[in-house]
Amino acid sequence: CFMMAKLPTLVDKDNVKTFLDSFDTFMTDCDGVLWSADTVLDRANLVINKLRELGKKIFLVTNNSTKSREQYLKKCLKLGFNVEKEEIVGSAFVLASYLQQRKFNKKVYMIGSEGLAEELDAVGIRHIGLGPDPMVGTSHDLIDTVELDPEVGAVVIGFDGHISLPKIMKAASYVNLVPDCLFLATNTDEMFPFKGSNLTYPGTGCMVRAVECVLGRKATVMGKPEPLIFEVVQQQHQVEPSRTVMVGDRCNTDILLGKNCGLQTLLVLTGVHQMTDLQCWVDGTDAALHKQLPQYYLPSLGSLLDLIQ
Amino acid sequence: CFMMAKLPTLVDKDNVKTFLDSFDTFMTDCDGVLWSADTVLDRANLVINKLRELGKKIFLVTNNSTKSREQYLKKCLKLGFNVEKEEIVGSAFVLASYLQQRKFNKKVYMIGSEGLAEELDAVGIRHIGLGPDPMVGTSHDLIDTVELDPEVGAVVIGFDGHISLPKIMKAASYVNLVPDCLFLATNTDEMFPFKGSNLTYPGTGCMVRAVECVLGRKATVMGKPEPLIFEVVQQQHQVEPSRTVMVGDRCNTDILLGKNCGLQTLLVLTGVHQMTDLQCWVDGTDAALHKQLPQYYLPSLGSLLDLIQ
Repeated sequence: CFMMAKLPTLVDKDNVKTFLDSFDTFMTDCDGVLWSADTVLDRANLVINKLRELGKKIFLVTNNSTKSREQYLKKCLKLGFNVEKEEIVGSAFVLASYLQQRKFNKKVYMIGSEGLAEELDAVGIRHIGLGPDPMVGTSHDLIDTVELDPEVGAVVIGFDGHISLPKIMKAASYVNLVPDCLFLATNTDEMFPFKGSNLTYPGTGCMVRAVECVLGRKATVMGKPEPLIFEVVQQQHQVEPSRTVMVGDRCNTDILLGKNCGLQTLLVLTGVHQMTDLQCWVDGTDAALHKQLPQYYLPSLGSLLDLIQ
Repeated sequence: CFMMAKLPTLVDKDNVKTFLDSFDTFMTDCDGVLWSADTVLDRANLVINKLRELGKKIFLVTNNSTKSREQYLKKCLKLGFNVEKEEIVGSAFVLASYLQQRKFNKKVYMIGSEGLAEELDAVGIRHIGLGPDPMVGTSHDLIDTVELDPEVGAVVIGFDGHISLPKIMKAASYVNLVPDCLFLATNTDEMFPFKGSNLTYPGTGCMVRAVECVLGRKATVMGKPEPLIFEVVQQQHQVEPSRTVMVGDRCNTDILLGKNCGLQTLLVLTGVHQMTDLQCWVDGTDAALHKQLPQYYLPSLGSLLDLIQ
């Protein structure tokens, strides 16, 4: 079965009605689509509010595990996005839902930050590991001083600014020693694009890969492009994959999630990937990159507003 | 070309003379072959000293980057190994030699520990990064406070007990921002086996993989099984690959190094890999595992002594 790789279709005056009529559910990434840091990207808030007026279901799906839904809601309202808490689906929330559905009742050893801790608290799951756990003394001291909690039944990894050798060692030791220990990661994003800085900011992926390397096995990943984040939405709401459009700025997470779940896909050019990237993939023969090509594109989410009015 | 995968030949009374006559150079791993922590494994020191009497060249090659050659020499002499500093080839030394040969004259940003720093000092290469560099404040604070040194021209990664987000971020930023920045790793061992502890102790590999993940590119690796460690020996000494035997307890590092460099190979069963592992590989069809099968094996290096006398 030979698939012709082709560039996405621009949403324009001619096809915007067909496009809008083709979906009931609008699922969108946040950073790079709706905002960059604390700034709304080109009227993205007005588009979201307009789509709601048109009767579309809205979901904000993000791999960022440092904020809870509660914290995201505050940010959304402050930036003029007319959304509700149930419409915000972060990888930390997905992870908590995953454990809750399995009726997990042991403790979690967590590499992660406040947002993940809050989501675990919200479903009554006990956790340890939050905050600094620095290396003290020598390698041998570490072997002698580390104590494992016998109640731990899962290791979860999200973004942790305090990542350290003792944390990596504890995570790996629990997975190896606890029978049937769950080994979960919120997401595997390699880096954060920080606008206005030339520094390369490490993402959760590097923390997940570090522990996976020690263990020689992979974590179960909650975030995009793994389908779980969409499945959680599907379980809790009435959502038809073929009548859902997934919007993002990053093809290997956002667009690939859409492809993996049978959704329609729309790339906006206000974040990571540009048309020059897509042209390279179309010209090449890498099937994995061909799979990341979206169906539609727009220069920005805000430009949809010009077409609707 | 179909290669029959087969178990290694036991060195015994019948073939020991052929085996000994087949090599001039005896190259051996340390931990798991010569010693475990601070204990000599089954007369390994007597074997090394005996081989020297028989006129064999001896080299100790190790991926461990936490000790300098000077520090290894002290340990060897204390444990009764009659060796000289020039015969000890650690991955930290190989890394320093690599930079020296390229007449590297900028600064190194180092994720690593004292042993690596000492080897860089020994060849007059300036370095920064040694010691703790913990996360302070929030993610955004980090972006605002990190300052890069314009003299840095290489990033090197060895074992670092103080691995941290600021360190990973600096390493990744230098590689991305400095034109032609070298990106080197001492080794990629996933974990250390610590006898007498059920904890899983992370190896250098997890630190290398973390930075590689952020960058989306691979480091140049000095240690086994990459051939560089043998090439450094070859450049500085008269060594004929086909007349060299590589001895180790770990097939994916020690034995594979031998295979990669056209050496003879001998596995001892006093460390990581056992005959049951090898039987699995022989029974399977994984060509990468077949390549890791050694030519000879011995229950311990010390057992060679029983055959020689």
